[in-house]
Amino acid sequence: MAHKGFTPSKTFVDTATHAQSCQSICVQTIQHCLQVGGSHVEPSHLRLMQDCAEICETTGTMLLRGSPQHNQVTAACASICELCAQSCDRFTGDAQMKACADECRRCAAACQQVAQMRPGGAAGGHHSVP
Amino acid sequence: MAHKGFTPSKTFVDTATHAQSCQSICVQTIQHCLQVGGSHVEPSHLRLMQDCAEICETTGTMLLRGSPQHNQVTAACASICELCAQSCDRFTGDAQMKACADECRRCAAACQQVAQMRPGGAAGGHHSVP
Amino acid sequence: MAHKGFTPSKTFVDTATHAQSCQSICVQTIQHCLQVGGSHVEPSHLRLMQDCAEICETTGTMLLRGSPQHNQVTAACASICELCAQSCDRFTGDAQMKACADECRRCAAACQQVAQMRPGGAAGGHHSVP
Amino acid sequence: MAHKGFTPSKTFVDTATHAQSCQSICVQTIQHCLQVGGSHVEPSHLRLMQDCAEICETTGTMLLRGSPQHNQVTAACASICELCAQSCDRFTGDAQMKACADECRRCAAACQQVAQMRPGGAAGGHHSVP
Repeated sequence: MAHKGFTPSKTFVDTATHAQSCQSICVQTIQHCLQVGGSHVEPSHLRLMQDCAEICETTGTMLLRGSPQHNQVTAACASICELCAQSCDRFTGDAQMKACADECRRCAAACQQVAQMRPGGAAGGHHSVP
Repeated sequence: MAHKGFTPSKTFVDTATHAQSCQSICVQTIQHCLQVGGSHVEPSHLRLMQDCAEICETTGTMLLRGSPQHNQVTAACASICELCAQSCDRFTGDAQMKACADECRRCAAACQQVAQMRPGGAAGGHHSVP
Repeated sequence: MAHKGFTPSKTFVDTATHAQSCQSICVQTIQHCLQVGGSHVEPSHLRLMQDCAEICETTGTMLLRGSPQHNQVTAACASICELCAQSCDRFTGDAQMKACADECRRCAAACQQVAQMRPGGAAGGHHSVP
Repeated sequence: MAHKGFTPSKTFVDTATHAQSCQSICVQTIQHCLQVGGSHVEPSHLRLMQDCAEICETTGTMLLRGSPQHNQVTAACASICELCAQSCDRFTGDAQMKACADECRRCAAACQQVAQMRPGGAAGGHHSVP
């Protein structure tokens, strides 16, 4: 028996994967920063890391459900990820911060591309043929 | 003993309260829609309700921590809340959908105002004097 | 025109309100702790505050949709809120930490009560009579 | 330059990965159910799918930050994942529901194991030697 169903587009799923990886490393890196202390726990840096984790979570979920209304959210996610990467860049010689910055930039690039898609354009949600 | 600390601005807290109320009614209204069935469970309507609940949650949290990087997120939240309100409007004569649309519009208005604030402008985070 | 619909029980809504208030004050208090620094940014304290905010969010949402499967989640929320309150208690003379501890205890008490309800018992989800 | 830092245990990271995969497939499967309609949009089934996505998200995040207070949450996650799997099982012949049930069971098994660890036992958070 066949079911018409829902499959988000490959672009959406790939970008959601980036967003989830970025959320994960941010959550871990916040804990790393708390453990290290000093300039790593500067309030605006940790606030940005929390914001980044959160907007990545929302972005990933919206893309996985194929939301055509994603454009402003993915654009916001790209901006916050880029800011977070820059904030992480300042901790030279810290491998965790470097890994976090790299993941943030990968997510920012993926989100930037998706954000520029025509609204509702390739929003996935194709009905599979029965 | 005095502590310098953090207090988000009143505008931020008020907007966060709208965002949380909007998230709450969306979560309840999704369940209402499932219970009612029929056109209430139309995929794009329920997807939008889920997106709205989620971006409201993120918006509320970012504002409560006084994030200066909120502008694109609050703008996205305003847009999605307005779309969600319009989607709820179609169910005339359904008090729950009317209440949800009203709350979405209140949140959209509050977020729209905050989104237009100068980035980092009134981001709260005042240090109280010791 | 009448619609059968969904209304979560008053107990559920009240407990969800406690959970949301607790989440909100935890989010704000994390930022307060980062601003104050010193022992306020001790890793296990801030980790617990983040956990508390997060389980409160999940608990609130589950209750708002009237989930009969809430018991273990509300019990977990009660435990984590109580631990978070104890962790906040240590910062004597800090009004924000006191307010956070109080809110955590109110949420813990509400969740404890709901957790002991018979599974699925008063899960709300009453169909309103047309 | 070396930094003492934070690394969650391998068991925690692996379980968090299961939780995130389970959240992802639940989010997608909810949209699939809405698209298919009929018995797929039965209120208690979709409520459970939403609960499952949400507790998985919380569980994943708690584990990634190495929380010693995870036991009740991972136990709750295991229970809800198992119930969600059973709910998905009923839709025989639907590949998406089958895939979702399988992922829920993998997550339930991983969470069950972690839940039984001594509280705080292998909570990770090892300080790497400088």
